[in-house]
Amino acid sequence: MSNKEKKDVAADTPNTIEEIVAATTIADVYKAAKNLDGVIKRTRLIESPFFSEISGNKVFIKPENLQNTGSFKLRGAYNKICQLSNEDRARGVITASAGNHAQGVGFAAQHLGCKAVICMPATTPILKVEATRAYGAEVVLFGDTFDDAAAKAIELQKEHGYIYIPPFDDKEVLLGQGTTALEIIEELKDVDAILVPIGGGGFASGVAIATKAVNPNVKVIGVEPAGAACMDNAFKKGHVDTLPFVDTVADGCAVKTPGQLTYAFCKKYLDEIITVSEMEIMSALLSLIEKHKLIAEGAGVLSLAALSKLTLKDKKVAAIVSGGNIDISTISALINKALVDRGREFCFSVPLSDKPGQLLNIAKILSDENANVTKLDHNQSQVTDSFKKVLLEVTCETHGHEHIARIIAALEKAGYTINKIY
Amino acid sequence: MSNKEKKDVAADTPNTIEEIVAATTIADVYKAAKNLDGVIKRTRLIESPFFSEISGNKVFIKPENLQNTGSFKLRGAYNKICQLSNEDRARGVITASAGNHAQGVGFAAQHLGCKAVICMPATTPILKVEATRAYGAEVVLFGDTFDDAAAKAIELQKEHGYIYIPPFDDKEVLLGQGTTALEIIEELKDVDAILVPIGGGGFASGVAIATKAVNPNVKVIGVEPAGAACMDNAFKKGHVDTLPFVDTVADGCAVKTPGQLTYAFCKKYLDEIITVSEMEIMSALLSLIEKHKLIAEGAGVLSLAALSKLTLKDKKVAAIVSGGNIDISTISALINKALVDRGREFCFSVPLSDKPGQLLNIAKILSDENANVTKLDHNQSQVTDSFKKVLLEVTCETHGHEHIARIIAALEKAGYTINKIY
Repeated sequence: MSNKEKKDVAADTPNTIEEIVAATTIADVYKAAKNLDGVIKRTRLIESPFFSEISGNKVFIKPENLQNTGSFKLRGAYNKICQLSNEDRARGVITASAGNHAQGVGFAAQHLGCKAVICMPATTPILKVEATRAYGAEVVLFGDTFDDAAAKAIELQKEHGYIYIPPFDDKEVLLGQGTTALEIIEELKDVDAILVPIGGGGFASGVAIATKAVNPNVKVIGVEPAGAACMDNAFKKGHVDTLPFVDTVADGCAVKTPGQLTYAFCKKYLDEIITVSEMEIMSALLSLIEKHKLIAEGAGVLSLAALSKLTLKDKKVAAIVSGGNIDISTISALINKALVDRGREFCFSVPLSDKPGQLLNIAKILSDENANVTKLDHNQSQVTDSFKKVLLEVTCETHGHEHIARIIAALEKAGYTINKIY
Repeated sequence: MSNKEKKDVAADTPNTIEEIVAATTIADVYKAAKNLDGVIKRTRLIESPFFSEISGNKVFIKPENLQNTGSFKLRGAYNKICQLSNEDRARGVITASAGNHAQGVGFAAQHLGCKAVICMPATTPILKVEATRAYGAEVVLFGDTFDDAAAKAIELQKEHGYIYIPPFDDKEVLLGQGTTALEIIEELKDVDAILVPIGGGGFASGVAIATKAVNPNVKVIGVEPAGAACMDNAFKKGHVDTLPFVDTVADGCAVKTPGQLTYAFCKKYLDEIITVSEMEIMSALLSLIEKHKLIAEGAGVLSLAALSKLTLKDKKVAAIVSGGNIDISTISALINKALVDRGREFCFSVPLSDKPGQLLNIAKILSDENANVTKLDHNQSQVTDSFKKVLLEVTCETHGHEHIARIIAALEKAGYTINKIY
């Protein structure tokens, strides 16, 4: 190759973020879709009467929780790894992740016959470690935090010459994620808006690029947890910045710093960012279980949590449920919180005279009011104003807040002083 | 019509159970499928690597938990109600059910513009009542048991001239359920066996009729909870009989007496009945959540629970998941049991000398062993052999049975006497 030719090639290869953004076209997204053909599951839209009513729009769920590996992350990881040269692939790939990206990289590497090393903090729940190992990946447990594991991954990458697979801030990764939007538009040709969760911004970037390239009239709305709204923060500041801390049940989106490339793509293509509260996320998760018999993780339901906040009305809206990898003990904990929130569980304490028959009175009132007692604590030492009293703590199953109000009224009418614990 | 003609019509109309069974053909099933076209969702098979490995067969899930109303029951109810004369439909329909049949009848009646009355015991959880009312049905709460509600339904039926819609022992109802099998065979042409849960036997009858009519080589295997195996009992006795009691987490299949008609159909067409334990049901339910992100009810996963018990190997097996209407508090309770079963939660008591520093020692050992403490009870009155000791009860999150064994060993090595509570 002559120097002139070399220079022309260099000029054609975009380097800066602005150049990469400008050079990314619909052809890139279609190429990613072709790469993924036969590897990913084509998840089908589910029309939701329940969420439609909440939203005032006709809502369709894109269930990427039903994707292979339980999340969309496989798309990006596969699109990246399948385009490596044979030589690079022979060296193996590495990443740091305790979440869906780990499983995506593991699955993709296994499918492509390539070694994968995944660094995770040593505190990672054994189940997540095992899920990743099940895809044939080598898991390296290191340090207490994600940052420790990420540093270890870079160290190992340098030492062994592995290829690093970034979780979001990479063109091929985010183009892979964007194929989700192509499927939505193919299946629902007159879709008006697509809702996509934002963690580091890779999914939102890919979906926005693909959507706007196919039909610029379709709105693309990103959704972040209010407790980890790193992209919203960058939009407001006009540049990428790091949040001092993040705190959200949507742990898959608990990202402090969005990507530089994903920020540039989102700024160019995203119509809007909506933030949602922890209670909105939890409530969406429970509704998805109850109304659609589908399990998702916290980050997975951000789009659903934002549906009631749309200014759009009477439009066709596709809400992407991004993933379903949630531990069963977390499901149980969330359900217990939701039961309290919905008035399905009621816990109160009541001071009783320390003489026979008192418990019987309380039991009778609860039975008459159709409240099912699930726990009783009887404690003599907690009442400080009298040695003649004991404190009874009662937990019972109830039918809602009105039911709880009726029970309290009945107890108070009988002369008891109730302290509602929750 | 002449008397001769009348007599011929009567002779053509089967009356006895034997006549009905003999007269039921594939044409009846196709007619039911046509009736249901556009009303029901065509649930698509989901290939399951996880359940395939457990079974030693290639397993496909037929997810009727994703059906409208959350179960297959809509199929039978709709097929029955849509064939009523205009006059009958104007009179309205009635049934007794606190479960999926109630919602099936409600949905079908609403869709056909017909009044529906559903009798339920007064003890029915308010959420099930509301789910049925949401389909426009009138819910009558009566009595303490299902039998009370059923008696009320017959009383109201006579009083108001409503048409009674039986839950399973009815030809049109079970033909509607059987359309599920047609869809399976259409989608998986070389299916070798279909697994279907048995409650009263309507679903199994319909599925068996349809399957054998299309391809007699496909095996149809019914699955019952061991604690409510009414059809297995009838098979063994050679006639329909009533179980003295039923006890199962699969409450949708907690039936004491199978139908006469369904017994005749099952006897003719079913290849085998498998019974499954409560633990097998619970484990299948948890695996469906973890591996497929799908929620089902106890009765819904009977087919999955039977997969490891098949004598078939290396065949294509369709396992029908019949329904997903499970209360979230039940999910939470099942998960908590499963966590204990899997060694993910460990509760023990240990007597401690009543002096400072004892709790610190225990906390240190648990921390070193990476066990996350979730609950502590400290009780002075429970140790009877010494006034100088207190009993500490500890609950912690663990990683499995091996992890628990390591924790116990560490505590015992430090001189503590552990009583494992669970």
